[in-house]
Amino acid sequence: MRDLMMVADLGASKILAAIATPDGQILAREKHPTIPQRHPQEIIDQICAVLLRLGEQTFQPGDCWQGAALATPGPLSYPDGVVFDSPNLGWREVHLLTEMRSRLAQELVVEKDTNMAVQGEYRFGQRGLYRNILYITMSTGIGGGLLLDGKLYRGCRGGAGEIGHMVIDPDGPLCGCGRRGCLEAMASGNAIAAQASEMTARGWGKERGLTADNLGAREIGEAARSGDAQAQMLVQKITGYLATGIANLVNIFNPEMIVVGGSVALGWQDLMARDLEAAVKAQVFPLNSRDLHLEFTKLGEDIVLLGCVAALIEAGSPAGIP
Amino acid sequence: MRDLMMVADLGASKILAAIATPDGQILAREKHPTIPQRHPQEIIDQICAVLLRLGEQTFQPGDCWQGAALATPGPLSYPDGVVFDSPNLGWREVHLLTEMRSRLAQELVVEKDTNMAVQGEYRFGQRGLYRNILYITMSTGIGGGLLLDGKLYRGCRGGAGEIGHMVIDPDGPLCGCGRRGCLEAMASGNAIAAQASEMTARGWGKERGLTADNLGAREIGEAARSGDAQAQMLVQKITGYLATGIANLVNIFNPEMIVVGGSVALGWQDLMARDLEAAVKAQVFPLNSRDLHLEFTKLGEDIVLLGCVAALIEAGSPAGIP
Repeated sequence: MRDLMMVADLGASKILAAIATPDGQILAREKHPTIPQRHPQEIIDQICAVLLRLGEQTFQPGDCWQGAALATPGPLSYPDGVVFDSPNLGWREVHLLTEMRSRLAQELVVEKDTNMAVQGEYRFGQRGLYRNILYITMSTGIGGGLLLDGKLYRGCRGGAGEIGHMVIDPDGPLCGCGRRGCLEAMASGNAIAAQASEMTARGWGKERGLTADNLGAREIGEAARSGDAQAQMLVQKITGYLATGIANLVNIFNPEMIVVGGSVALGWQDLMARDLEAAVKAQVFPLNSRDLHLEFTKLGEDIVLLGCVAALIEAGSPAGIP
Repeated sequence: MRDLMMVADLGASKILAAIATPDGQILAREKHPTIPQRHPQEIIDQICAVLLRLGEQTFQPGDCWQGAALATPGPLSYPDGVVFDSPNLGWREVHLLTEMRSRLAQELVVEKDTNMAVQGEYRFGQRGLYRNILYITMSTGIGGGLLLDGKLYRGCRGGAGEIGHMVIDPDGPLCGCGRRGCLEAMASGNAIAAQASEMTARGWGKERGLTADNLGAREIGEAARSGDAQAQMLVQKITGYLATGIANLVNIFNPEMIVVGGSVALGWQDLMARDLEAAVKAQVFPLNSRDLHLEFTKLGEDIVLLGCVAALIEAGSPAGIP
């Protein structure tokens, strides 16, 4: 007899769906590409169908469902769970919580992916040790999840944590949000690709067969590791931007723990980790650096799924039968 | 029969001390200059002597003491109440909580002034209406107090709220904290004086008898009101910096309420208020602007004293006899 949870991580490029237990075991899992042309309703149908199929395959007599949770790119309004205008998904005014509930008939939690991630890190990464954790994801964009005094902080409408949209340079590049020099416009995967593409325009990367079309954080990372000075300089520059943003947040929040995740950050971990921590600690107030830890998440791609589990436990995981 | 509280606001230039009631009435009050040459022990002695004297004058048979509270410039460590290194006071490692307790024999709360202010605003300004309030003080420096989900947020060591030390321009002027382009270095009273002084170096203000020595936010404000174009431009520039910083915070916190205070901000309220609110709302995510209010505090100079009252109530104000 096991307690089971349906958990899913909807991203701009992929959907992860799984059946998990409250102690963070993943019993079954599937990964599907997100097809952007699809209507939101179809994508929601698809997620629920996968969850129900995995559930059927995993469920054994005596097992008990403890709810379902879905993570989605922000902004997502709280508590009503509406995606008003998601640049990553291209969705407008999708009543995600209502739509999911009508398909699953389960106790349901819907939350922004970064909010799920920080809860996953709190429970399954740091195991409750630190009560103030900022989770920072650096992938296509930059976002954050805030766990303050042991609780997820959402702000008044669910809009908190948009740390990528903190201007750190008024002369920086234009951001998707309309401002100039947001951290996301300076240091995200997209920003790295844009800066790398400028390098190719100046002739860089020809001998590696690199052009603006096939060049991103991964290729820059490889070039930096193989000793390319320009690629190393770009990594340093990006690390510096990220350090500026994180140091700002450390002065604002005085957290015990900064956890860095996201595909770009994890891909560059060996190149950035030491310099990033040193630069942050050098910039912040002594009182704020004294107990500060900075880590890259060890939960990898599962951080958001584990966050769904943590969120269901936090929500009191009342029993429900699908 | 009344409940009475001893409350004091220690600032870099003045000490406010008062006897107050839990409903925010100030029954007696004194204001003294802070004499920077004095040893911390002497200043603490002075504050306690004034509080005890005011207490003696106010106390009537049947009255009941409900504790004492002191606000101090940060950084102040929590929960031990130590001033490690205060640039504004010039204090180093002063065990303020212990020192005060030994002199007053009262239930005691010691807290950073901005943390007191946001609690005062929550209880006596907004009267509990909004549960997420960022208080921003703009005076000699720039600081903040964070009230999140209805509770003061201090971070893990009391260092939270240092919003003045958020870099918003890497090419900006050097800040006292060692970084470049912090909000405080761009938009504080000191920063305004520095920029005004550059204006006089270019010949501005001669006809008004203004030189770098007698020129600050007040004089710039007066010149702007009288139609001086350069002074108006400086006010606009400073308003823009402040809007950038506040918009960053709105994207990070999604608060219902931004409250602006501090002598410089309140002195420029008529010049800044409308542009500031419009600029902030134009820059933040729609989800984060929807429920956002921006106000200048109506509590004036008493905001920190009222915060002391609020903090004592929050601490459970157990009775004690001095």
